Amino acid sequence: MKRPEKAYCLNHAVQYYETDAMGVVHHSNYLRYFEQARVEWIRDKKLDSFHYPHCDIHWAVIESQLFHLRPAYFGDYLQTYLQVKREKLKICFQYVTFSNRFEEAVAKGLTVLVPVNSDKQITRLQKPVKDYLENLKWTETWL
Amino acid sequence: MKRPEKAYCLNHAVQYYETDAMGVVHHSNYLRYFEQARVEWIRDKKLDSFHYPHCDIHWAVIESQLFHLRPAYFGDYLQTYLQVKREKLKICFQYVTFSNRFEEAVAKGLTVLVPVNSDKQITRLQKPVKDYLENLKWTETWL
Amino acid sequence: MKRPEKAYCLNHAVQYYETDAMGVVHHSNYLRYFEQARVEWIRDKKLDSFHYPHCDIHWAVIESQLFHLRPAYFGDYLQTYLQVKREKLKICFQYVTFSNRFEEAVAKGLTVLVPVNSDKQITRLQKPVKDYLENLKWTETWL
Amino acid sequence: MKRPEKAYCLNHAVQYYETDAMGVVHHSNYLRYFEQARVEWIRDKKLDSFHYPHCDIHWAVIESQLFHLRPAYFGDYLQTYLQVKREKLKICFQYVTFSNRFEEAVAKGLTVLVPVNSDKQITRLQKPVKDYLENLKWTETWL
Repeated sequence: MKRPEKAYCLNHAVQYYETDAMGVVHHSNYLRYFEQARVEWIRDKKLDSFHYPHCDIHWAVIESQLFHLRPAYFGDYLQTYLQVKREKLKICFQYVTFSNRFEEAVAKGLTVLVPVNSDKQITRLQKPVKDYLENLKWTETWL
Repeated sequence: MKRPEKAYCLNHAVQYYETDAMGVVHHSNYLRYFEQARVEWIRDKKLDSFHYPHCDIHWAVIESQLFHLRPAYFGDYLQTYLQVKREKLKICFQYVTFSNRFEEAVAKGLTVLVPVNSDKQITRLQKPVKDYLENLKWTETWL
Repeated sequence: MKRPEKAYCLNHAVQYYETDAMGVVHHSNYLRYFEQARVEWIRDKKLDSFHYPHCDIHWAVIESQLFHLRPAYFGDYLQTYLQVKREKLKICFQYVTFSNRFEEAVAKGLTVLVPVNSDKQITRLQKPVKDYLENLKWTETWL
Repeated sequence: MKRPEKAYCLNHAVQYYETDAMGVVHHSNYLRYFEQARVEWIRDKKLDSFHYPHCDIHWAVIESQLFHLRPAYFGDYLQTYLQVKREKLKICFQYVTFSNRFEEAVAKGLTVLVPVNSDKQITRLQKPVKDYLENLKWTETWL
């Protein structure tokens, strides 16, 4: 797979505390990289005012899928690309992570989120968020 | 979904450091709970002598899937059930996690693993492991 | 140092996800082991009804100190001993962690905590907690 | 305390997965922020060729101390300043972390490290590292 041309991208330097005894990034960290990329995307699109802590709504992960293609090592620089689409109440992100070490993808995945209120009940997306998401789609499928 | 009757089960008390600002267990921890259950299952079945650190083979996660059904809170007690089956080189675990707080499942998921050597290359399963896994199957599908 | 004779003790199996690329437990986990031991001690002494989530008070860590004496490895079993004393508003825990691998301590440390309310302001200890802590002391110093 | 004028500084955006149920950064993360700052400092000073993974020596943390002065929240931007000095085999870092939210320090601390080889035995610092560290000192004490 080649690096996506049209996709938001977040850089991350692999931290020592993210490695495990196999000398590579522990697989649970990819969900954290995806979250980090998602949060930065939300900020970049000025949607953060519609999310905790600026209002009482969280986008809660209800489903995720991960594919690990190659290892990542301490000191590698990772670029996580993402695309977003809305399916009714669900906000669907797909991700692909490249490293400076390989020309190929290190990991791919998706997370499905729904807006929840402070009682952890599913709630509606605010209109400006809904409008913004309306125009988004996955221009290709990475999984 | 009811609790599985025929499945290995691991208990875990939710730790404070596993919670996030929503007051619930951060979703990335479920991959850690699954790993913990898997490792204990490997020990329980006396297969740990065929895995790091007792030999130079790791079972590396190449794929995972997670469904979050209900939140888990600090102080909850979680029971993670698992079942295993082999598909050629792949070792496939399915998991379902219950908490003492609900009668229903909190999370479900699967992880697919392959044996890798110290060069991170896919390798063969040792014969006793292969023989043991031969007789295992998922008696139901939880996902 | 010998294992303390008169001290609360918590067992913990080192998890794979707690190791780092040096093949040992990453040092940040010891603060988590100490927290785990502290929380279990609070429960054991029936003081948890005076703490989040049962009431709106957290014991917040304001200071900690750690000494790493020997490495801990995946699969090691750790026993963390603790002792408690109160100094005005401060609740002072000392810890020492042993593993089944060595006859000597793996790590030692202390954490100092103060009760804070939901606004993160220092508050008073409830009377039953204060009374209970009144009778505690460190019978020796481990640091 | 005012921000140090003469000190290496690392920026870090607080991640959602670093928060806990109190809505603030869990205290164990500060050891990770300190590590991240230390690693970037090592790279900045071109000393990384003398450390894992470029050679078989790790700087292992043998002691640490932390003071928590104010909470940090999801979305805060943290600046961790550090200074270094050598005391025989020990490499001593002091740190102070500020956030964009307060004019005052959020956390302060120190870590003491020693070089260890792949057998986890204390070893000598390589000459160029020793020479570089020779000229460093803490120009003030932050703790």
